[in-house]
Amino acid sequence: MEFFFNPRGIAVIGATPNPFKGGYAILKNLLLGYRGGIYPVNPKYAEIEGLPCYPAIGDVPDPVDLAIVFVPAPSAPAAVEACAVRGIPGVLVESGGFAEAGPSGALLQRTLTDIHRRTGIRIWGPNCMGLVDAVHGHIFSFMDPAAQERGLTPGTVSLVVQSGMLSAGFLVDIMSHATMGVSKVCSVGNKVDVNECDLLDYFLGDPDTQTIGLYLESFPEGRRFLEICRRSDKPIVVLKGGKSRRGARAAMSHTASLAGNREIVAGALAQVGVIEARDFKQMIDLCRSLALMKPPVSGKKRVAVLTFSGGAGIVATDFLEEAGLTLSDLSAGTRATLAGLFPAWMPVANPVDLWPAIERHLGTDMDVYSGALASLLADPGVDAVFLQAYAGGSRFRLNLPEWAGLIGAAAKPVFLWLLGHRDRLFPVQQEALSLGIPVFSELFRAAECLAALLRERPPREAAGTAAGPDGTAPADLRERLLAGAGPLDEHRSKEILKALGVPTAPERLADDADDAEAAAAELGYPVVLKGLTPEGTHKTELGLVHLGIADGPAVRFAYRDLREKMDGRGKVLVQKQLAGKVELILGLVRDPQFGPCVMFGLGGTLAELYRDTAFAVAPLSRLEALNLIGRVRGQAMLDGFRGAPVVDREALARLVIRIGEIGLAFPEIREIDINPLIVGEDGAAAVDATIVLDRPPAAP
Amino acid sequence: MEFFFNPRGIAVIGATPNPFKGGYAILKNLLLGYRGGIYPVNPKYAEIEGLPCYPAIGDVPDPVDLAIVFVPAPSAPAAVEACAVRGIPGVLVESGGFAEAGPSGALLQRTLTDIHRRTGIRIWGPNCMGLVDAVHGHIFSFMDPAAQERGLTPGTVSLVVQSGMLSAGFLVDIMSHATMGVSKVCSVGNKVDVNECDLLDYFLGDPDTQTIGLYLESFPEGRRFLEICRRSDKPIVVLKGGKSRRGARAAMSHTASLAGNREIVAGALAQVGVIEARDFKQMIDLCRSLALMKPPVSGKKRVAVLTFSGGAGIVATDFLEEAGLTLSDLSAGTRATLAGLFPAWMPVANPVDLWPAIERHLGTDMDVYSGALASLLADPGVDAVFLQAYAGGSRFRLNLPEWAGLIGAAAKPVFLWLLGHRDRLFPVQQEALSLGIPVFSELFRAAECLAALLRERPPREAAGTAAGPDGTAPADLRERLLAGAGPLDEHRSKEILKALGVPTAPERLADDADDAEAAAAELGYPVVLKGLTPEGTHKTELGLVHLGIADGPAVRFAYRDLREKMDGRGKVLVQKQLAGKVELILGLVRDPQFGPCVMFGLGGTLAELYRDTAFAVAPLSRLEALNLIGRVRGQAMLDGFRGAPVVDREALARLVIRIGEIGLAFPEIREIDINPLIVGEDGAAAVDATIVLDRPPAAP
Repeated sequence: MEFFFNPRGIAVIGATPNPFKGGYAILKNLLLGYRGGIYPVNPKYAEIEGLPCYPAIGDVPDPVDLAIVFVPAPSAPAAVEACAVRGIPGVLVESGGFAEAGPSGALLQRTLTDIHRRTGIRIWGPNCMGLVDAVHGHIFSFMDPAAQERGLTPGTVSLVVQSGMLSAGFLVDIMSHATMGVSKVCSVGNKVDVNECDLLDYFLGDPDTQTIGLYLESFPEGRRFLEICRRSDKPIVVLKGGKSRRGARAAMSHTASLAGNREIVAGALAQVGVIEARDFKQMIDLCRSLALMKPPVSGKKRVAVLTFSGGAGIVATDFLEEAGLTLSDLSAGTRATLAGLFPAWMPVANPVDLWPAIERHLGTDMDVYSGALASLLADPGVDAVFLQAYAGGSRFRLNLPEWAGLIGAAAKPVFLWLLGHRDRLFPVQQEALSLGIPVFSELFRAAECLAALLRERPPREAAGTAAGPDGTAPADLRERLLAGAGPLDEHRSKEILKALGVPTAPERLADDADDAEAAAAELGYPVVLKGLTPEGTHKTELGLVHLGIADGPAVRFAYRDLREKMDGRGKVLVQKQLAGKVELILGLVRDPQFGPCVMFGLGGTLAELYRDTAFAVAPLSRLEALNLIGRVRGQAMLDGFRGAPVVDREALARLVIRIGEIGLAFPEIREIDINPLIVGEDGAAAVDATIVLDRPPAAP
Repeated sequence: MEFFFNPRGIAVIGATPNPFKGGYAILKNLLLGYRGGIYPVNPKYAEIEGLPCYPAIGDVPDPVDLAIVFVPAPSAPAAVEACAVRGIPGVLVESGGFAEAGPSGALLQRTLTDIHRRTGIRIWGPNCMGLVDAVHGHIFSFMDPAAQERGLTPGTVSLVVQSGMLSAGFLVDIMSHATMGVSKVCSVGNKVDVNECDLLDYFLGDPDTQTIGLYLESFPEGRRFLEICRRSDKPIVVLKGGKSRRGARAAMSHTASLAGNREIVAGALAQVGVIEARDFKQMIDLCRSLALMKPPVSGKKRVAVLTFSGGAGIVATDFLEEAGLTLSDLSAGTRATLAGLFPAWMPVANPVDLWPAIERHLGTDMDVYSGALASLLADPGVDAVFLQAYAGGSRFRLNLPEWAGLIGAAAKPVFLWLLGHRDRLFPVQQEALSLGIPVFSELFRAAECLAALLRERPPREAAGTAAGPDGTAPADLRERLLAGAGPLDEHRSKEILKALGVPTAPERLADDADDAEAAAAELGYPVVLKGLTPEGTHKTELGLVHLGIADGPAVRFAYRDLREKMDGRGKVLVQKQLAGKVELILGLVRDPQFGPCVMFGLGGTLAELYRDTAFAVAPLSRLEALNLIGRVRGQAMLDGFRGAPVVDREALARLVIRIGEIGLAFPEIREIDINPLIVGEDGAAAVDATIVLDRPPAAP
């Protein structure tokens, strides 16, 4: 990838002297910052902006490592082909009019893919904005040269954005507001070859990059993406676009790629420790915060709040607690120090309202803010400080260098929420940025970012093996149980699960009323009788379930009733009725982007109503499985809610891992739905289940 | 209240020439903007800032309608008393050190209350920042005079903030960022007399105020507040501080007043059509948006999205749909117009990605933005337009005056999400503000505000009468059923409810096993037998409920079992078992700020787990009751979820209203808890209920 970022020479195919065209802007941007050879290519001109212009790429002198292509889409494949012939290792195709523009554009895009596969030339784009490197001053893009003329703010955050224009507007906005400097910003567009995985991988080894933010509308290599995230030591923040029904439709037409299911994406990102951002601004805020501050060594989340105003402290506390943080109980020493700053009537509490202390010392040399901050940072019960200040008061000043020194010495994160007059605020923001203090103009943003920094990070752990089920699986499993396609009935689904190590409720099929009574006696009362029809589903709604059967005559009655209702078809299943009060859902789905994914959630009617489920990508490590279980909102249900048994999370995690392993080992299983998985005193068992088979894959 | 806002003369008690003291800042602020007589009062000085200084308030010449008091708390009561003697109608007590500072301060505050009650003098404060009137240039406050020197931005939004310092920092921040002008900003502090209700009432009649925002930590006159909101034609936005456990504790110490329960406050505000803001910034954004734009006459929520970038359109769609809006299907005419602007390869869709059209016409006179906006605004399927633009591109310009003309002609709201370089962004923001176009620098904020503007507003409707239950209530209800205190058993609770018109499950107490069997036969099988102990609660956990009893022998068995378990104490209740699948909760609580409140929610174990309940203040109108029912998240449960009956919302609303009426009519009922209220084919009935009585009120 190095030739994309640091090429020794660049050809611009489609260069033009017309200042309203992108082919001019690309050239102009190169002239403003790039120090290597620049070679305009366009048969219509002999010279552009003082540079010799070449009729074709073949005429360009060595060395040239990169070509930026900005010609109408129908001419792009020929231009790329010529680059491959010329031996250029990489092209940035910035033209639009490909898959995002309908069938004929899609055809052109496929031609680009073919050229890449055939010649090995790396293609970045099409339909993209290229890249900006603020550290080296490179803009390989048709974005407005005015941005570069006003200067780029270098920093340690690198960004990948799928959409083209986004990078331009956002970048200028971000940099000019002194909220963040950037290292590299890459616009990936339609991703015929180079995609976010290539860039993420490159950033992991890039010394100029400390944190990485990505705006993505699809994950064409979902599993590779997760694998790279898993081994990253640099914080990664992702904003997923195209979440809503209509948003997803727009994503389809915009990048012509498949938008993933919102919940699956959220689960996959959480699983590998990636922070999901709610919007662009938060993505930037998170990247900057994580680049500037390290989590406290205590690993705890106790925050001291120090504000310029009592009301600000109250609302800050609301937001910090909503974000899952707790407020520190201040030590006696801290309380004494603060009491010394305050007027006598002022009680000391956290949140600390500093105004009475400021007012008391107005006109003196006393730096109340720094004094209070120092005492809070020294308190062993304080893991982080949330600071609010007003920039531009004429009666006292904010000593940011002093604060930065205190923060560095304490090695505890301090987040600054700053208000003030626009003219006075800006220099203080710039000063904070240069001193490495994360500064925010919104409480809500600051609180969310602090919470993200202090959140538990999933410890690195080898993912569960993808070995599949152990040796207990019968040799004839595939032939006997996994033949066919479509949904299997409850009994056969559970036979498969049992064979693969998932506990199921004791049950067997009954041939007639006598056999049903015998089965019930074997299993032990109470039992359940169910009628299984070829259609399989909606047993309850069709009256094909008899619960709580307590004796032989009732078994016979239920058997005859089911037979009658099924009109001679189907089978009757006798099942031991399990007593547990905790109903769960456990399932497997195959996501087109991430492959086999395990779903876990609370079962029962109302849980379905509240859609309390979470996803993770297989294989799962033990901790990932425990985290998946921990992501369900109704956690209380697992911890002995209203007399229900306490769920053994370790045992449940093993089941979760097992479902993922089954998904990896048996591609012919398209879906598993265990609903309910009932947890009783003796552990969990699948009480009802449906497995959906695909046609078996063709023999290799 | 007029003497607070437009006094003919102002005395400043505690004026001082020391520029670091609030008593100087107050005087300076008056000199900078107030045009009436200014009278410093301080026995230590003969003259301050060129004005004669008076030794006491009695020495100040007429006319003087207002005194601003800024002396140490212990001296404040005497100062206020002297103002009352002097015949001054109102005082602004801006000193701190009262109830927020502990017991001795609380005593001083009570003295102020006494003076107000005894003399009738209106007291605003203490512990407050006073007021700012940007339209008239009045600052009656000790806030930093630098703010006024930099100029106030007049507008039509008036604010009330409980906390003192907030007003200063936020006001300067808001005004200097060109996001909003203000009319009046009032800091109410500890509210010994003047509170948010007085100010809100004043603002309703104030021609300079079009929308009202309030930051409040408590509602000391909750019911009066709601009554004023209910009759307001001006949009009202409230931010409630002190929501979290710790935040509420801070609220207690800060304003020494009771913070209300978060859910009750949310319910009460929603009930009267007040918009609850999530933070300060949103409060300001909402006020400004509602001041600038009116909801579309269509009353619908179909939005066209017009962006500078495809990615921005995708993410905007995500946020708009999350906020409950839908995207417009564009008419054939609109599609044709847009197609004419786009290059041939570009498909027309909503969200509309304008960049290819802009690029196509770069360097021409074609104003693509205005053309697209005009065609969207003309589309009858478009109720509002969400516009994104980049300020400061050197290759095209944004024609805001043209847009403002189009918006005015179409009478449809247009919200602008604007990005750009800080230097170029600011003048465009200012221009948008001056043209009345709401402009935002964050997508998420813009989408939420547009949704707030387009939301259904509860229609004005007379609240249900507070007449209490109708004539069916037995005359001896109070004597027979409502005597005593504490929780009543299930049977007596339902007797009361039944007497007051709430349907209950058919049931009666049984004296012995024979009587139980007779009762079951009267009620009809299946029946439930319950053991009622004096302790009352946890029947299920104690094994005191027998469900699904189908015949006489089972009744006798259950009766004996209950008697045995209750060890001779208690009563046995025989109840008809109801078949409904929908379990609801309906209750009454008394909130210290809002009085009797009705709670409605979904019942059952899992609903308790997810806390899906909502509150409203009694009395409720029919629409308010329907809205309360509609605020529960699990709405699907009411609409025939998985074979359950469809709930008759009108009948349920009548029950909700009735519970509120009972709460108003019977102060001795402290709490009602109907759980579950089961809805079956024949309507709803209370199946279990607990009423908690207070000691009966003393005879008048």
